[in-house]
Amino acid sequence: MTGLKKVVQLVHQDFEDLELWYPVLRLREEGIAVQLAGERAGEVYRGKYGVPAQADVSFTAINPADYDGLLVPGGWAPDKLRRFPEVLALVRHMDGAGKPIGQICHAGWVLASAGILAGRTVTSTPGIRDDLVNAGAVWVDEEAVVDRNLVSGRRPPDLPMYMRAFIDVLQAAK
Amino acid sequence: MTGLKKVVQLVHQDFEDLELWYPVLRLREEGIAVQLAGERAGEVYRGKYGVPAQADVSFTAINPADYDGLLVPGGWAPDKLRRFPEVLALVRHMDGAGKPIGQICHAGWVLASAGILAGRTVTSTPGIRDDLVNAGAVWVDEEAVVDRNLVSGRRPPDLPMYMRAFIDVLQAAK
Repeated sequence: MTGLKKVVQLVHQDFEDLELWYPVLRLREEGIAVQLAGERAGEVYRGKYGVPAQADVSFTAINPADYDGLLVPGGWAPDKLRRFPEVLALVRHMDGAGKPIGQICHAGWVLASAGILAGRTVTSTPGIRDDLVNAGAVWVDEEAVVDRNLVSGRRPPDLPMYMRAFIDVLQAAK
Repeated sequence: MTGLKKVVQLVHQDFEDLELWYPVLRLREEGIAVQLAGERAGEVYRGKYGVPAQADVSFTAINPADYDGLLVPGGWAPDKLRRFPEVLALVRHMDGAGKPIGQICHAGWVLASAGILAGRTVTSTPGIRDDLVNAGAVWVDEEAVVDRNLVSGRRPPDLPMYMRAFIDVLQAAK
């Protein structure tokens, strides 16, 4: 369908189960195509609690230009995700193109390693507040924070407002 | 706030993690109040994968007339939920009043024990199709099925369409 938006959700071991799945299911409800990108296509990753999520594509196989938005889950997956140069290049591409990036909880680590946080206003779990501030971000304690194309949330109970904000930014994007 | 809708989500051990939490978070995004009702108020139940969910109220403490809709999760929780007379009375009250009831996957067991399925069109996991048919239901294999106030889905990938249908029925209800 022409004009259908397409979003890529990053995945790796020990993602926060609801922080990965609520956004994926919510966007699908909205008629938005979502692909999961992991280290290896077809691999099944497990959330912190064990909910499975299979990667549709690998980090190296995707073309960032094919996507209208990016989601980074929380949990411990960001500690792994930030180590892949392809992931950091994807984050920089999306931000450079002004495309929406959603990040929640510990996901901000990936944006810090991508070097895109200087002067940006974000939230996160309080646990990584210092890392985001040291990366140049302005940190605020709110359930859903929008700074142009960057949308952030703190923790699972923020998911409703975080995803409402992400969808609004995605639908308003060119 | 006058006019705010209020929904009760049933919870017990080994609920399907996404089938409980996606609906709760999704309704909260919509501005609908959701309470979790379990065997004991304050008790933390765990999903099949281990995602926690704390009961706000107990089955015995709630007044069915206070709620505009009811959600029954899948997983193994329905095998427990159907054993509580208060739960079956709640289901019968909601159905008798024409209030929306959402049920997904194995949740149909609870409706079968409440005796409200005769002549009703529903879906479920194929695993309990025979139980629902034996309870008098007309069983169909679709991602989201609406029969007046009854909304049903089969499994987690149906959650986007299942909740879209449930919200439509809830918002259209008096």
